[in-house]
Amino acid sequence: MADCGADTTLAFEPRFDEAGLITAICVDDADGTVLMVAHMNEEALSLTRRTGLAHFWSRSRRSLWKKGESSGNMLSVSEILVDCDQDCLLVRVVPAGPACHTGRRSCFYRRVTDTGLEMVGD
Amino acid sequence: MADCGADTTLAFEPRFDEAGLITAICVDDADGTVLMVAHMNEEALSLTRRTGLAHFWSRSRRSLWKKGESSGNMLSVSEILVDCDQDCLLVRVVPAGPACHTGRRSCFYRRVTDTGLEMVGD
Repeated sequence: MADCGADTTLAFEPRFDEAGLITAICVDDADGTVLMVAHMNEEALSLTRRTGLAHFWSRSRRSLWKKGESSGNMLSVSEILVDCDQDCLLVRVVPAGPACHTGRRSCFYRRVTDTGLEMVGD
Repeated sequence: MADCGADTTLAFEPRFDEAGLITAICVDDADGTVLMVAHMNEEALSLTRRTGLAHFWSRSRRSLWKKGESSGNMLSVSEILVDCDQDCLLVRVVPAGPACHTGRRSCFYRRVTDTGLEMVGD
């Protein structure tokens, strides 16, 4: 992690990558459980801040995506934190339902073992 | 998040991006606090699994990076989880010291406000 001055400033200067995206980790505001990881472009971040509901950029669909727009499982944003080099966001959310498209609370429901994956999530 | 079959398999098939990297979120095994986010290439992931110590690929230095090699603040890996589409890892770690290069426990020590950033971390 480069020491780039971004780590001391109190100016919010998110560093979008060459594709114009920043990684957003969504954690449950209740207990910090990591629910999902997605990406925001400038518009998605702006909409998230303005509406208080998480918006992302879908890389596969190449479109703006309001989380929960079809499923109803929206994510209400409590707080956004930024990391030292301002290239990653930590979004604390109150989820309206399962965050994962599989219907599970979290996208991280499998553990890596020596031989493959093992289910651990609910 | 595309529904791509990766979400049901028990085979570990990490999806590295076009740069050969996968995002790794490191959380404290003790309480789930998000400590830092970095990237692994295939070699870093392999070394992490083999040694039990977190290794990353530094995009800025363009080199393999054993976390804590110079600072001593290594991250012992308790468990690795993978998300539904297998393009992100959640690494539960026991940190030997501060995870952030600034000396803070976590890289996420600033909150986004309406006007900028506000310090919240220890």
